[in-house]
Amino acid sequence: MARIGATPGGGVTRLALSAEDKAGRDLLRQWMVEANLAVGVDDFGNMIGLRAGDDDLPPILLGSHLDTVRQGGRYDGAYGVLGALEVVRRLNELGCRTRHPIAVVNWTNEEGVRFEPAMLCSGAIAGRFERDYVYDRTDRDGLRFGDELRQIGYLGDAAARPTMAAGYLELHIEQGPILEAKQVPVGIVQGIVGITWLDVRLTGRADHAGPSPMPLRRDALVAAARLVTAVDAIARETDGAVGTVGRLNVAPNSINTIPGEVVMSVDFRHPSAEVLEALVGRLRHVAAEIEAGSGVTIVIDRFWTSEPTPFDPKVLAAVEAAANDLGMAAGRLWSSAGHDAKYVQEICPAAMIFARSQDGLSHCETEFSTPDDLVAGANLLLGAALRLAS
Amino acid sequence: MARIGATPGGGVTRLALSAEDKAGRDLLRQWMVEANLAVGVDDFGNMIGLRAGDDDLPPILLGSHLDTVRQGGRYDGAYGVLGALEVVRRLNELGCRTRHPIAVVNWTNEEGVRFEPAMLCSGAIAGRFERDYVYDRTDRDGLRFGDELRQIGYLGDAAARPTMAAGYLELHIEQGPILEAKQVPVGIVQGIVGITWLDVRLTGRADHAGPSPMPLRRDALVAAARLVTAVDAIARETDGAVGTVGRLNVAPNSINTIPGEVVMSVDFRHPSAEVLEALVGRLRHVAAEIEAGSGVTIVIDRFWTSEPTPFDPKVLAAVEAAANDLGMAAGRLWSSAGHDAKYVQEICPAAMIFARSQDGLSHCETEFSTPDDLVAGANLLLGAALRLAS
Repeated sequence: MARIGATPGGGVTRLALSAEDKAGRDLLRQWMVEANLAVGVDDFGNMIGLRAGDDDLPPILLGSHLDTVRQGGRYDGAYGVLGALEVVRRLNELGCRTRHPIAVVNWTNEEGVRFEPAMLCSGAIAGRFERDYVYDRTDRDGLRFGDELRQIGYLGDAAARPTMAAGYLELHIEQGPILEAKQVPVGIVQGIVGITWLDVRLTGRADHAGPSPMPLRRDALVAAARLVTAVDAIARETDGAVGTVGRLNVAPNSINTIPGEVVMSVDFRHPSAEVLEALVGRLRHVAAEIEAGSGVTIVIDRFWTSEPTPFDPKVLAAVEAAANDLGMAAGRLWSSAGHDAKYVQEICPAAMIFARSQDGLSHCETEFSTPDDLVAGANLLLGAALRLAS
Repeated sequence: MARIGATPGGGVTRLALSAEDKAGRDLLRQWMVEANLAVGVDDFGNMIGLRAGDDDLPPILLGSHLDTVRQGGRYDGAYGVLGALEVVRRLNELGCRTRHPIAVVNWTNEEGVRFEPAMLCSGAIAGRFERDYVYDRTDRDGLRFGDELRQIGYLGDAAARPTMAAGYLELHIEQGPILEAKQVPVGIVQGIVGITWLDVRLTGRADHAGPSPMPLRRDALVAAARLVTAVDAIARETDGAVGTVGRLNVAPNSINTIPGEVVMSVDFRHPSAEVLEALVGRLRHVAAEIEAGSGVTIVIDRFWTSEPTPFDPKVLAAVEAAANDLGMAAGRLWSSAGHDAKYVQEICPAAMIFARSQDGLSHCETEFSTPDDLVAGANLLLGAALRLAS
């Protein structure tokens, strides 16, 4: 799969609904057919390869996504789809039958790089996005999602939507350094943290850097620097929290002019919605203190929040039990990035399994997980899927 | 003069060697001739209007510049040239004779906006810049200084250079808020502060803002924020110092990516060269501390320094005495910006007089000084010039 959209630097560019995505989908469909799966495609292009169960029960879904970011890695997404495929192949080899059907799923446009927002088509299945909204998403060339989906031949049928399911498991690379720090190959993901994004505008007064005595200044960047430091400190003081100022722009941004305005972003993440609110509250408090002492006006716009998504206890218990069965050392952690499982959890009980990432790198060509860790993750998926489907 | 290059917003755009500069020069020459001055132009376009003295002595120079920044104000520069002209007009009206000749000077290209660097032609007179270097300066359209000087008809004779002078006084608006804070109309400028410019590059590691636990981060912006705060604190703790981070750029500057690199400027100014060195020393010390604690590499490039220029005690004494004669309340302050007097001080004893600026504004269309303050400054120039020339 990594040969499709391969980059010279060893990564992959396989944007959603591109020619590369079509080629990846065609290959997956071929492999699904070869594994005797019944292949369906829904009206968002989500692909479902169904392995029949013994009883008339809703399926256990196993999946992730084949699309990548630009110059992304070989593992993010594809690992979870191919890991799910490997599970059914192994069940086939063993002649193992399950009560529930098991379905391999490839969700469309998880990355949100070509069509915003991310996790578009798992979100659509969960009722987060209307079909017309999804179809009208455009890429930077103005091409519509709906047109592109039809063009690559993956506009399917609403009846194929995998909305009736008994459970969902998503295998994914960690994209972070926690399992490496814990020295374990795999992690049992307890949920997806809440994320809140704020824009902060600091307005002082632009003045010549020479003839403006320090006590008379209203320096927007000095105030912003204090806020950047505060974001870092607030996150460090709160167990399990992260806080980041990733974007900061200074105006007029000239060496001999006191900055008159700074606009900066703040990203806070935490598993608990209450703690997330507390982080924002502390930021507002510090901002008010800085405002009072600096003559700089600070306006905070909290423009986006994704609430925490704890995963389902029964699905988590199945993964824990499978890890015990295998005698596998597994870490417990929260995902700090979004995944399709976030939305799928809204239609059926869900959880995720992470495989260790080397140096925590991802969304880059050097993204890497060892074959051993990838096999461990897939074995854990197999064990948990068997428990859920039996 | 402010009608030449007037902008709709009430300011002036009269860039060096432009058609507007030529028109301003032509008007000044006409006024010089009407004031019975012998007009000379040197090979840098510096204009000298000489009023004869009784003895065979070098002249006392009074001057500033007629060029402006884009959308600048009506006072910066022009005030000093026209103030000097007013001094000789007044001497003419009174029939007052002096031992030394008095010369009104208009220096070419002080602002450095069209042709870098600033103070180009007072610097050339002081031997800081070679003639070929000056002539080869180009504007953003690639037009050469030498060609443009000839084109507007102000390429004069090297013999006219005002290098033999007994003293120099420059009248200028303050461009800062100090005299306003002191509630005095004029200031006696003790010198021009030293300025040093540094570029600081902080290199951490760009990571996804989600899955990177706080203790494992190498956030270049958090380190930069501590340095910005330190620059402010170091300057505030040092009497007479200013310190500014005017420019700061973050990479990759994305809301959900930990900043991997920050490049920022530092501008320190102080009247004492020793203190200026100490400020830089403290910055380096703090940078080393931040580097040690953050895993962020900090490289400091001190790329430009303008040494402090204390003005001449005898010229300052003449200005002080003139203020006493006039019973005029005058503040004492240092100029935190460069002026032609910085270079002229290298060829003859020099000092400056500032007139109060409203709100400290300059290099903008709303630059303003009251007629009363402007008259006070010119009267002080007259009194000091008489003392120096007598």
